[in-house]
Amino acid sequence: MRTVSDIGERALVDLIRARVPPAPESVIVGIGDDAAVVEPVRGMLTVLTTDALVEGIHFDRAFASAADVGHKALAVNLSDIAAMGGRPSVALLSLALPDGMAAADVEALVDALVALAAAHHVALVGGNITRSPGPLVVDVTLTGAVHRRRILRRGGARAGDELFVSGMIGGAAAGLAWLRAGRPAGPAALGAAAIRYLRPEPRVRLGLLVGRGRAASACVDLSDGLADGVRQIAGASGTGAFVEADAVPIDEGARAWFGARGVDALDAALAGGEDYELLVAVPRRLRGRFRAAAAAARGVRLTRIGALTAEPAIRLRRGGVERPLPTGFQHFTEGTGLAAR
Amino acid sequence: MRTVSDIGERALVDLIRARVPPAPESVIVGIGDDAAVVEPVRGMLTVLTTDALVEGIHFDRAFASAADVGHKALAVNLSDIAAMGGRPSVALLSLALPDGMAAADVEALVDALVALAAAHHVALVGGNITRSPGPLVVDVTLTGAVHRRRILRRGGARAGDELFVSGMIGGAAAGLAWLRAGRPAGPAALGAAAIRYLRPEPRVRLGLLVGRGRAASACVDLSDGLADGVRQIAGASGTGAFVEADAVPIDEGARAWFGARGVDALDAALAGGEDYELLVAVPRRLRGRFRAAAAAARGVRLTRIGALTAEPAIRLRRGGVERPLPTGFQHFTEGTGLAAR
Repeated sequence: MRTVSDIGERALVDLIRARVPPAPESVIVGIGDDAAVVEPVRGMLTVLTTDALVEGIHFDRAFASAADVGHKALAVNLSDIAAMGGRPSVALLSLALPDGMAAADVEALVDALVALAAAHHVALVGGNITRSPGPLVVDVTLTGAVHRRRILRRGGARAGDELFVSGMIGGAAAGLAWLRAGRPAGPAALGAAAIRYLRPEPRVRLGLLVGRGRAASACVDLSDGLADGVRQIAGASGTGAFVEADAVPIDEGARAWFGARGVDALDAALAGGEDYELLVAVPRRLRGRFRAAAAAARGVRLTRIGALTAEPAIRLRRGGVERPLPTGFQHFTEGTGLAAR
Repeated sequence: MRTVSDIGERALVDLIRARVPPAPESVIVGIGDDAAVVEPVRGMLTVLTTDALVEGIHFDRAFASAADVGHKALAVNLSDIAAMGGRPSVALLSLALPDGMAAADVEALVDALVALAAAHHVALVGGNITRSPGPLVVDVTLTGAVHRRRILRRGGARAGDELFVSGMIGGAAAGLAWLRAGRPAGPAALGAAAIRYLRPEPRVRLGLLVGRGRAASACVDLSDGLADGVRQIAGASGTGAFVEADAVPIDEGARAWFGARGVDALDAALAGGEDYELLVAVPRRLRGRFRAAAAAARGVRLTRIGALTAEPAIRLRRGGVERPLPTGFQHFTEGTGLAAR
C-alpha cells in the first residue's frame, strides 16, 4: 500500500490538483501559487466559515470511509453558509495527514469532497497539506455570497415568531449509535439514518430561498441539535421559546433505535447533533413568503415545532405539561463555532 | 490549572470573543453566528490562503510558547498574502485543542494572534473550536484584497529577470537548531535567529508595494527555503536560474551556528525554510520601479542573488564553478501549499 509519506507532499498536491475540475472564470489564481485569487460576486457581501473534522472526535475510521469524511468536511461548511442565506462559492482544503494513511484514501477523500463541491457549483481553489503525528484532520474553509439585506442571522427574531425545522430530526444520532454498535440487524431506517450521519446533505437551496425571499427573522443550522438551535436563536434574539413535543418530526430510524432501547426518542432527537437541518424563525406576517420559499425548495419538509416567547424560559410542552427544554449538546466533545457551527 | 476541558467549548468561544477588538465597519457579521459576513473591498479581487501549524510537526511546545504559536500561525498566512501582493483583511481561526491544554495558553495564543492581526489591520471574524485527541492544531485562513493587474504570481517571469531576496536567509533554520539543542551559550545572533524562527515578521508592506508598483514579474515567499523558492519561480515560469553563492545574504546567527559545526552555512541557508522572506523576479526594465518600491519599504534590505536563464538548469555559481543548486526542502515533513506556502 502506497502511503502519503511514500509519495511526499509535492506529489500529494499534484494528486489533488489532478482531481479538481477546471476552475470557473471567477477564479483568477487557483491551486499552485502562494494563495488563491478570486473575483467576488458583484454587489454581494462575502460569507466566510471554517469547520474541521478531527479523527477520533468527529469520525471513527472504523465506520467512516475516507470518502465519507471528504463529503462531510465540505457538507458541514455548506450547512453554515446555508444558515446565513448564502450561495456557496469557493473552498480551501487544509489536510493534516498521518504518515501511514493510504494515498488511495487521500484520493477518495478528495474525490468525494470535489463531487459535493461540483453539485453546489463550488470551486476548490487552494489549501494546505501537512503531516499529522496523530489524527487525520480535515479543515475546510468555505466562502459564499449573500445580499446585504438577505442575510439570515441567528438573532433578530421576536416573541411570537414561529419556529420551523426542515426535514427529520434525530437520524444522525441514531445512525451514529447504530454504527458504533456494529450495525446490528434492524429496520432499513437504521441504514438510512447512518447515511444521514455519514453523508449529510446540507439545506443549501432552502437557506438561499428563505434568504432571498426575506422570509425569516432568524436561522441556524442544527449541527449541535434542535434543543441547542432553539437556545441559540432565542438567546441571540433576547426571547424565550417553547417547543411542542408532538410536533417535532422525529426520524424513523431514531424512533426505531432509541425506542427499542427504552430511550425517549424525543429527548434523543432534541439533544442529538449533526442533522444539519435548518431551524428558522418566521414572523406571522412573513408566513406567506416562507410557504412560498419552502414550496420552491421542492421536497424539503418544513414543520412548525413551536414559537418564540416574551418570557425568557425555554420550554417543552408535552401533553399539557410544560418543562424546561432539555439542554442539548454542551460538552467539549464536538466542534463548535466562533462564527461557524 | 484550568484546562480547556474544564471550561467547555462555549466558554472558550466567549473567552476568545472577549479578546478580539471591535470589528471594523466592513465586518457585517462577526464572531458568534453560523458564518461571518464581510464586505469585499470595492473593485478589488479577493486573495485566500490557509495554513496550519501542527504540534510535533511545526512546533515543539518545549520551546515554542502558546503566544509564539499564535503569532506564527497568522504570520505564515500573512506571508502568503504578501507574496501575492495583497493587502490582508480578515482571518478565521480553527483550533483543535488537546483536553489538557491550559485555558491560559489558549488566551496567550489568541492574544498574540490578535496583536499581530491588529498590527496589520486584520480583523478576526470567526473560526471553529474542537477537541483534539492528539496534537494542538492551529489552522488560520486569511483573506486579502488585490487589484487585478497587481497580482504577484510565481509564474510569468522570463529569462534575464533578476532575482532579489528580502532580508537575511538561514536565520530561522539556525534558530530552530539552537532551540532544539537546548540554547547552548553562544553569540547574541543565535537568540535573534531563534526569534526569527518563533516570531517571523512577514513582508506584508514590501509585497504590497512591489505589487502596487507593478515592479516584479514573479514572487514567492520563502516558507520552504531559498533553493525551493528559486525552483518554484523558475518551474512556474518555464526557465532555469542561477544563484551567485557570494551574493546570498546569510544571517549572522546561521553563520555562527552552522560555521561552528562544520556545516556549510550557505547550503544550510539555501535549504532551511521558514525565513518568510520574499523572493522576487524583476525584469531589467522594471528595475527602477523595483528600487522605488524597495526604498518605500523602509528598512527592508533587498539583495540581488541571481537571475533566471533560458537554459532549464538551476545552478549555484561559486568561485567560478557551477553546480546544481542543492535541493531544498522536499520531505513530507512540513506544511506545503495547494495555493498556500
